[in-house]
Amino acid sequence: MEFLRLAKREDIYHNFFPIFRPLRRVKVAIFEALRRFSGQDIISPEDMPYFPRSTVDGFAVKAKDTLGASTNLPSILRFVGEVKMSEKPSINLSDGEALRIWTGGWIPQGADAVVMLENASLNQNIVEVYKPVAAGENVLKVGDDIKKGDLIIRKGKEIRAQEMAILQALGFFEVEVSRCPRVLIIPTGNELVEPWQDASHGRIRETNTVAVAGLNKDYCEKVERHPIVPDNREALKRAIRDNIADYDLIIVSGGSSKGAGDFATGAVEDFEGGEIIYHGVQISPGKPTIFARIKEKPIIGLPGHPVSSFVSTYLFILPFVKYLQGATKYLPEPSGYLKAGIDIPSKPGREDWIRVKRDNDKVFPIFSESGVLSSLVKADGLIRIPENLEGVHAGEEVEFYLL
Amino acid sequence: MEFLRLAKREDIYHNFFPIFRPLRRVKVAIFEALRRFSGQDIISPEDMPYFPRSTVDGFAVKAKDTLGASTNLPSILRFVGEVKMSEKPSINLSDGEALRIWTGGWIPQGADAVVMLENASLNQNIVEVYKPVAAGENVLKVGDDIKKGDLIIRKGKEIRAQEMAILQALGFFEVEVSRCPRVLIIPTGNELVEPWQDASHGRIRETNTVAVAGLNKDYCEKVERHPIVPDNREALKRAIRDNIADYDLIIVSGGSSKGAGDFATGAVEDFEGGEIIYHGVQISPGKPTIFARIKEKPIIGLPGHPVSSFVSTYLFILPFVKYLQGATKYLPEPSGYLKAGIDIPSKPGREDWIRVKRDNDKVFPIFSESGVLSSLVKADGLIRIPENLEGVHAGEEVEFYLL
Repeated sequence: MEFLRLAKREDIYHNFFPIFRPLRRVKVAIFEALRRFSGQDIISPEDMPYFPRSTVDGFAVKAKDTLGASTNLPSILRFVGEVKMSEKPSINLSDGEALRIWTGGWIPQGADAVVMLENASLNQNIVEVYKPVAAGENVLKVGDDIKKGDLIIRKGKEIRAQEMAILQALGFFEVEVSRCPRVLIIPTGNELVEPWQDASHGRIRETNTVAVAGLNKDYCEKVERHPIVPDNREALKRAIRDNIADYDLIIVSGGSSKGAGDFATGAVEDFEGGEIIYHGVQISPGKPTIFARIKEKPIIGLPGHPVSSFVSTYLFILPFVKYLQGATKYLPEPSGYLKAGIDIPSKPGREDWIRVKRDNDKVFPIFSESGVLSSLVKADGLIRIPENLEGVHAGEEVEFYLL
Repeated sequence: MEFLRLAKREDIYHNFFPIFRPLRRVKVAIFEALRRFSGQDIISPEDMPYFPRSTVDGFAVKAKDTLGASTNLPSILRFVGEVKMSEKPSINLSDGEALRIWTGGWIPQGADAVVMLENASLNQNIVEVYKPVAAGENVLKVGDDIKKGDLIIRKGKEIRAQEMAILQALGFFEVEVSRCPRVLIIPTGNELVEPWQDASHGRIRETNTVAVAGLNKDYCEKVERHPIVPDNREALKRAIRDNIADYDLIIVSGGSSKGAGDFATGAVEDFEGGEIIYHGVQISPGKPTIFARIKEKPIIGLPGHPVSSFVSTYLFILPFVKYLQGATKYLPEPSGYLKAGIDIPSKPGREDWIRVKRDNDKVFPIFSESGVLSSLVKADGLIRIPENLEGVHAGEEVEFYLL
């Protein structure tokens, strides 16, 4: 009998990930930067806005001139013209005067607020103001959004739609990011056949690699799939040797449990510079995951059961491909909290990742073996039950991870 | 003074969306189906597994033969051979016998459970079992995962990594989905310049379209951008007329508020079959959003302020592009619940969507005007404060929408 010496999940993040260095930096156009991670601290080269800007359509005024204005007793101001868009106004507003201005217009000298169009009316050369404004109201002052020299995007931050927008707003065309990882998945298993092959007589269609690829697609340059390799140490070694130079991460799917069928660890150890860093993690499902290296290349061995493979991919591979791009936030983080719909038991001594169906603010566990793929299809997400708990009671809050 | 007659957010989903029909169906290869929506109920053509399958490496046995087994007093069984992978075993197990079997192997006639490798040992032709198994233990029976005829993916369900895997497991190569929408965004505004143009003298780089495109990229065939159109009804009409046939949705960015600068509604109404369905929604930010049609083509007008534009896109455009693909779940749904870190006031009578920073299970509001783009970059998500509340207290749970 052989036993796995189990790592904690954190051990993988703290001890395995840092063995490898983020990938080489490249520059990409802003619109290609979605979901990548900034390679540097980005500092604003300018104030935004760089001129005092109206945030509404209305009349630029001196706020004090509108004091006490009401529908019954409007303030009466002199209309002295209009601020043209895309122009710095030359006028200097005097007491008792109002200038027509549009959203985005440049607040003229002398004015300190804008009365919204719906709170005023213009008749001949008289502007009636029905509601007072405070100084600064409806005005974005220079640098109110961003000041020149502000840190706008920290190194390692994920670039979302709004980060793309702000980069464009500040005149950037490109952003420095890490290259996206190229990943190869090698499916192993004597019982497996390719999807298009005959799957009778105890043969099983290989499907884990599809799920792994789907989960990682957004964060990888490519996730490619090797043809199925039989449960044979030499065959697996060949598949690794022939491909290791072309990929940033090699995933071996299956063959990771400590049984007579286990050969993935052996195949890695046969390489010069091959080293198993961890074999097995104190989580369920996903326990028999292998974390290894061949020199500077990471090799991760996933369990063969579809649910274990999926959870391991979610907890380790996806964070790792983000880590390889220099992300600062790459760990799985709950999407929020929901309530246990019923009592959910759990085995202490391991962290449980339980598939759940969601019903508004409640979650209901889907209990099934880790070989049951349909349980993942039914699941809206996962909940985490820490290793020191024997379960959670109905109504208790749990961390929810949306899938 | 003119006022908007405001719709409720639900009015848009219930009355505007259904005016338009989901797009034409197409067949795509499974790996191209990620994040698309099944065009039909998918029924399993077979049992999964189609044979009784071992879920572990170990020994196939009759459970009753292991009754009371322990390390000190193991059950002693006769070793009668091995179940080969990808083969239906011909043997019929008799009382007191054990067969070597691997994960995925076919459980032979007569056996009803599998003892895990770590709970047994093989010496000569004797298998010692150290732990009893129950009937059915470590066995996936025929149809335990999926039964022939089961509904595995409901029409309109989003296809995630696990849906792709199950389709492949069941021998599907393609899946029917709706065509992805082709979207055109027309930026409008006299103050705006293209990102590469000179942005001085009160000119502003156009950036809203980048955020809109980024938010929708995953769910659209393409999100294209028209050159900037000045605040001019005829120019906007021309831009719409020249493009409407080529796109499934036209978004007009800016020019949607009811001011003298408002011309988007007019431009739409000038078309034959042009109709404003709603102008303005009881939400903040995002109020001055326009929902319109020109014959069978949807036109949505977004507010010009970057935060309003972003929130409107999140609440309406993204759901709409999913709706156009026949999705059943397209409405914004909280990622989970978090707690207000401080008291957060809100104006009753409108639904507030407040940008928040997250700190573990708490959220902290980012208060700023809707013209402040950097507030979106600081935000980890949005929280919703319903229109009947004047705010939430510190410690209260709030719906969190991860951005």
